[in-house]
Amino acid sequence: MGPEIVTLTTDFGREDHYVGVVKGVIAGIHPTARIVDLTHEVGPYALLKAAFVVAQAHRFYPAETVHVVVVDPGVGTSRRPILVEAAGQYFVGPDNGVFSQVLEGEKEPRVREIDVGRWALKPTSNTFHGRDIFAPVAAWLAKDTPPAEIGPLVDEYMRLDRTKPTFVEPGRWRGKVLNVDRYGNIVTSFPAELLAESPSDFRIIAGEIEVAQTAETYAQAPPGIAFVIAGSSGYLEISINQQSAVESASVAIGDAVELVFSQDS
Amino acid sequence: MGPEIVTLTTDFGREDHYVGVVKGVIAGIHPTARIVDLTHEVGPYALLKAAFVVAQAHRFYPAETVHVVVVDPGVGTSRRPILVEAAGQYFVGPDNGVFSQVLEGEKEPRVREIDVGRWALKPTSNTFHGRDIFAPVAAWLAKDTPPAEIGPLVDEYMRLDRTKPTFVEPGRWRGKVLNVDRYGNIVTSFPAELLAESPSDFRIIAGEIEVAQTAETYAQAPPGIAFVIAGSSGYLEISINQQSAVESASVAIGDAVELVFSQDS
Amino acid sequence: MGPEIVTLTTDFGREDHYVGVVKGVIAGIHPTARIVDLTHEVGPYALLKAAFVVAQAHRFYPAETVHVVVVDPGVGTSRRPILVEAAGQYFVGPDNGVFSQVLEGEKEPRVREIDVGRWALKPTSNTFHGRDIFAPVAAWLAKDTPPAEIGPLVDEYMRLDRTKPTFVEPGRWRGKVLNVDRYGNIVTSFPAELLAESPSDFRIIAGEIEVAQTAETYAQAPPGIAFVIAGSSGYLEISINQQSAVESASVAIGDAVELVFSQDS
Repeated sequence: MGPEIVTLTTDFGREDHYVGVVKGVIAGIHPTARIVDLTHEVGPYALLKAAFVVAQAHRFYPAETVHVVVVDPGVGTSRRPILVEAAGQYFVGPDNGVFSQVLEGEKEPRVREIDVGRWALKPTSNTFHGRDIFAPVAAWLAKDTPPAEIGPLVDEYMRLDRTKPTFVEPGRWRGKVLNVDRYGNIVTSFPAELLAESPSDFRIIAGEIEVAQTAETYAQAPPGIAFVIAGSSGYLEISINQQSAVESASVAIGDAVELVFSQDS
Repeated sequence: MGPEIVTLTTDFGREDHYVGVVKGVIAGIHPTARIVDLTHEVGPYALLKAAFVVAQAHRFYPAETVHVVVVDPGVGTSRRPILVEAAGQYFVGPDNGVFSQVLEGEKEPRVREIDVGRWALKPTSNTFHGRDIFAPVAAWLAKDTPPAEIGPLVDEYMRLDRTKPTFVEPGRWRGKVLNVDRYGNIVTSFPAELLAESPSDFRIIAGEIEVAQTAETYAQAPPGIAFVIAGSSGYLEISINQQSAVESASVAIGDAVELVFSQDS
Repeated sequence: MGPEIVTLTTDFGREDHYVGVVKGVIAGIHPTARIVDLTHEVGPYALLKAAFVVAQAHRFYPAETVHVVVVDPGVGTSRRPILVEAAGQYFVGPDNGVFSQVLEGEKEPRVREIDVGRWALKPTSNTFHGRDIFAPVAAWLAKDTPPAEIGPLVDEYMRLDRTKPTFVEPGRWRGKVLNVDRYGNIVTSFPAELLAESPSDFRIIAGEIEVAQTAETYAQAPPGIAFVIAGSSGYLEISINQQSAVESASVAIGDAVELVFSQDS
């Protein structure tokens, strides 16, 4: 028996019945499942945010954990419901790219199309697959149903652009904003190791700000000054001590950022 | 032994200690209870919203689940604390109509007045019955206390107006807004089956908009155009693809809406 | 074996991965732990609010519950990570005063400095001790690790100003705002018993309002009029029936309030 953990990542918000309904479906099939909310507060249809949350969080969960992600503007259309096997865990959701970051590190990704006829609640709505398809599949997986029974492997599935920075010209790389968090920190796609390797010879351009200063802790930095820090997610982040960096920069998740190496800085 | 599940639906919000205190009282009495948050984010005193959430969600929970609802502007007054037995489950909260929708489908509703002297924490406050009365009763029920021990059956209890649409004149029915969700969808009280039966000969008037167009999925509809869809809750909903219908309509939960059958449309 | 309950109180908000990551670390070490969210919605760096929430909530949890509090503007600096033993329970978090109210009632407080070298995840970040230090320590405590193994007792630790009211002059006491809740109630540090003992001979001055009227329930009070009520937390509160008292008073947590006894009122 696995750890029976099912995590939920959705854009349902918390004021409606949607989250409670999904948990009810899981509890109805598997009353002893441990349901864990990752977040229900990504903005409506905020695919990139949900992709980042599940990619970050899953690394800390035990093997065989089941992660359900429901950010699904295409619900009811021909986009398929899928099960991804990666990192020894299961990921259940729509085939719209939301598992791209989870799959980036995976050498042999296994993606299955969920057999809706077999696993979905009947009648199956066109508007709430979180309840009708993803919740039952997650509950059955947590109850040790072999993934091969959920549906056949598929070769084609949606992947978003890779998060890996791209080369622009000598000394210049383009990355993107992977996350903007509650504190206003800007998480870039540049690896945190850069800071250890070459702490003083680069700057990052993010929207309206350009940041060359670095710090090792939030509290170390003088107030009001943006700095680059090795973030806990493994990426370089732009922060301001007890203030919002994103307000100064005016960037959003998915926006391009640049890293410039400067011989003379 | 039942599933030991206790769900919580409150207007406590999430920034205060109230939710954590209620969970502590339950855990203190019944440490292995599975506590599930339905929502704590209905607006302060938003009785109709809470009534809708619990009515929708309970249908998916296993038998003997205990649902606690605390939206209680009359806390401390003579309004009674009650236990409702319906659909094989238990509902604990104030006698202010919040279980009306749960009871609508019930042929033999059983409503009990909670014996406060026996079950409440002492001292019992006038301002926090979620902690002092509803949480202990829920914990004891989840721990297999027979409902008859909680208190005597009562015949009189508060019921809100039925959600069932009413006849206005030939071809014209009056319903109401049952829910407005995070996405801006407007859930009406008109049954979803209408769309299957007569998809093109009616229109709905909701506040400032009148909607005759229908769609089967959100994504199918052209942007910016309001449409009627068979919602996942079993009711007709008014939606706009990736936009808020409620902003266009300017309606709130409880407001009247009309359904007009039109021979010529 | 204790109740295996770990509660979480943070300023992480709910839209990011931080909460899910902390839960994953706990589940990875102790998959059957019962993780309970007290709140993740105290404002960023809102130490006083978090201190109040955990002080209020812990009283209702079973012995050996582990409470994690992460409101930590000094993360990564020399402020120490600590384990507090109080009220038969465990409190894990930064040494920044956030456990002051829990410790106020404690005759023999035991505070330990967490042995980071032994218990932290490696590598240990400078920016996310909730994940790297507090979550693993909480999981191991819930798994019955003896507290003495977590680290040595220390004599010095940060304490905030006591919440106990101070004497100003005859008939005049100074207290503070302990909490402002979602409903706009102002929780003062004056004990609720005052209302029972001398219900009509005092008034409270809080920011822009002065309140002499009292009530026993919210609903009893006329609309729009601020009143003093014996709050559920054991303190006098200033409220307005179905309105926000804090909007009228313009006070914040930590602000001074005064209690004036008046022979002639």
